[in-house]
Amino acid sequence: MTQVEYDAQLDAAIGRLHEEGRYRTFIDIARRRGQFPHATWSKPDGTEVPVTVWCGNDYLGMGQHPVVLAAMHEAIDAVGAGSGGTRNISGTTVYHNRLEAELADLHGKEAALLFTSAYIANDATLSTLPRLFPGLIIYSDSLNHASMIEGVRRNGGAKRIFRHNDLDHLRELLAADDPAAPKLIAFESVYSMDGDFGPIREICDLADEFGALTYLDEVHAVGMYGPRGGGVAERDGLMDRVDIINGTLGKAFGVMGGYIATSAKMADAVRSYAPGFIFTTSLPPAIAAGAAASVAHLKQDQALRAEHQTQASILKLRLKGLGLPIVDHGSHIVPLIVGDPKHTQLMSDMLLSDHGIYVQPINFPTVPRGTERLRFTPSPVHGPREMDALVKALDTLWSHCALNRAELAG
Amino acid sequence: MTQVEYDAQLDAAIGRLHEEGRYRTFIDIARRRGQFPHATWSKPDGTEVPVTVWCGNDYLGMGQHPVVLAAMHEAIDAVGAGSGGTRNISGTTVYHNRLEAELADLHGKEAALLFTSAYIANDATLSTLPRLFPGLIIYSDSLNHASMIEGVRRNGGAKRIFRHNDLDHLRELLAADDPAAPKLIAFESVYSMDGDFGPIREICDLADEFGALTYLDEVHAVGMYGPRGGGVAERDGLMDRVDIINGTLGKAFGVMGGYIATSAKMADAVRSYAPGFIFTTSLPPAIAAGAAASVAHLKQDQALRAEHQTQASILKLRLKGLGLPIVDHGSHIVPLIVGDPKHTQLMSDMLLSDHGIYVQPINFPTVPRGTERLRFTPSPVHGPREMDALVKALDTLWSHCALNRAELAG
Ligand SMILES: Cc1ncc(COP(=O)(O)O)c(C=O)c1O
Ligand SMILES: Cc1ncc(COP(=O)(O)O)c(C=O)c1O
Repeated sequence: MTQVEYDAQLDAAIGRLHEEGRYRTFIDIARRRGQFPHATWSKPDGTEVPVTVWCGNDYLGMGQHPVVLAAMHEAIDAVGAGSGGTRNISGTTVYHNRLEAELADLHGKEAALLFTSAYIANDATLSTLPRLFPGLIIYSDSLNHASMIEGVRRNGGAKRIFRHNDLDHLRELLAADDPAAPKLIAFESVYSMDGDFGPIREICDLADEFGALTYLDEVHAVGMYGPRGGGVAERDGLMDRVDIINGTLGKAFGVMGGYIATSAKMADAVRSYAPGFIFTTSLPPAIAAGAAASVAHLKQDQALRAEHQTQASILKLRLKGLGLPIVDHGSHIVPLIVGDPKHTQLMSDMLLSDHGIYVQPINFPTVPRGTERLRFTPSPVHGPREMDALVKALDTLWSHCALNRAELAG
Repeated sequence: MTQVEYDAQLDAAIGRLHEEGRYRTFIDIARRRGQFPHATWSKPDGTEVPVTVWCGNDYLGMGQHPVVLAAMHEAIDAVGAGSGGTRNISGTTVYHNRLEAELADLHGKEAALLFTSAYIANDATLSTLPRLFPGLIIYSDSLNHASMIEGVRRNGGAKRIFRHNDLDHLRELLAADDPAAPKLIAFESVYSMDGDFGPIREICDLADEFGALTYLDEVHAVGMYGPRGGGVAERDGLMDRVDIINGTLGKAFGVMGGYIATSAKMADAVRSYAPGFIFTTSLPPAIAAGAAASVAHLKQDQALRAEHQTQASILKLRLKGLGLPIVDHGSHIVPLIVGDPKHTQLMSDMLLSDHGIYVQPINFPTVPRGTERLRFTPSPVHGPREMDALVKALDTLWSHCALNRAELAG
């Protein structure tokens, strides 16, 4: 092909996004440490504007917690910037080992295995399991996160997609397969875009009945649910029934990285066979140190978790009071369905430029087409003033945009 | 399957590694900031032993450079620990934008796109290109890194593997395919385990002749080659002939992260379509800040690059003088082929326990079976004393192990 043809294909690919109103422009937002959720928006023209962030996933504000920052500063002073190697080749330090011990303890498991992100933890683990269990069939919830989908798809192993949270469908699929085949059910505890919960107990029951392993993504739950922040499975007393728990260190824990917590044998096998674990520079010691401090802190800060839930309840109550079509499944995530990419973009733009409120539009492929939304993430760092400002701005805007209130409610 | 059966499969998978002598035990090594390559080895029994690291990929010691550490400290104080979001959803800061600008400039490209690692940059980009160019055929060097292999494999697109650095074979494969089909040649500038160079100019010539795009992994070259550290393509005046350059921030730049540098259109399309870019928390601002400081510094520190090459030359000369079978392709990497996983492990163990020298054995699947090796990475932080100690220890050990000197030389 010629250069002109390659360029034309790229133009076409980018053009499709513009046409559908889902071309993404990244907004340059720097939060101010000690003043979360306040941030500085650097506009493309170079000017700076103060804004309030309402769509971050640092759900508890741990990204500015003094214990986290102190641990990072100390590690940098002690051992420098990067790890300088893969985990196997000079890139394992006491910080990595301590963090893995902290995480295994958090989930009541024998072992934890650290990855550079929960994305790669999902992708690498799910694509490696078919190599460990030849003939493995993976049963995957239809709304699983992109990283799980990529992992399930990757090695071309057998897969069955069950309708979101549909236990009857899952049972049907399990029953249709060879009882002797190795099986794994992959699902989430909190689905991040709707904020609904996966039926962990019922899925574990089905797994027992059909001899399947369970794989649970607790990325949007770790740190926030359970008496020690072990997630929804901890809250519901189910951690020992889940074979592999996946979590992130980049959301409620406020830093970066991902992991699985599981049996010693399973961790050892994944560690030994997963390319996405083996062939990459390990996390910087300072990142591991900050994450470990955050996990340790949240094991005992139940008050922060309670405050987080309270904030979410208040925001939902107030938005419902205005008749706005928010989705409420009782979690900490507050999605406001707009249902069209262009309207969603417009609302987001107006909130930012007219009200100094930053909430990113969520479009396809992150959510299904027709369910485009604004997704609010209230946190303990959002005070009453920020909450008032948001509610007022949404009230004004929603009338302005003449969207029928509650019409699209989920 | 039953729990007992699952466990038996895991035992079998781990057992295979033990049998082949390639079960990996991670060594807990913490370098001491300001005293690289000196480090503390924490043994499993809790005791600590001082060691010298000879196998890290922080090739220039930038992981302890004051400008890098200062940038990290400052960013933590300014904006906190993590970014709190994906690049699109509140996770883009001025630090990310600055780093991307620094990298685009480094490679003389219109744009750069930051990923959480070079692993994911390779995997995500190579697996997304077939979506942008339907029918794309990828021509991949047989010794390409695992992350490129995973990316090429992932989406089941057409692929051709050409024998390592074999231009005739590559030409043959290109000539056999439909001239109108979109094509991409993926290769490396420095192959990290042998330290040999890819024929960049000749491959670009073939690409022009057959209308193919070029994708070059410069992970083991960025920071170290070229007058500004732009890699081998910069050194050879070829950057503008390569369509996509991949690099890491975790090796010579001493921090963490990966990227591609390419045209504005290409970066925009990959940014918009690659799940591995879209659906993951962005790098912590402090990591981006440290990396940007490192890249900026190395643009002007030609002396450090020269010293690095000198160190590598001296070590190779001295080891050759002893008749040891090292591989020398003129790069900074010094592999000593042992050729058997158990011997390699033994030598590594003895160097560590008897001489305080840490060099990890490199086994399959990182290198082909039968070419197991010790891989030394001399750097400007290794002084004459460390060099003497290494040469002496290897001399003693090699006699002890009764390996025939030079017999296995590559
Ligand atoms: C459900 C889910 N799993 C995994 C991930 C990936 O986590 P990380 O940001 O650590 O890569 C995300 C979001 O980023 C997510 O929403
Ligand atoms: C050739 C090559 N490409 C890519 C990578 C991945 O780089 P990173 O450590 O940034 O994931 C590595 C090593 O880790 C490598 O050796």
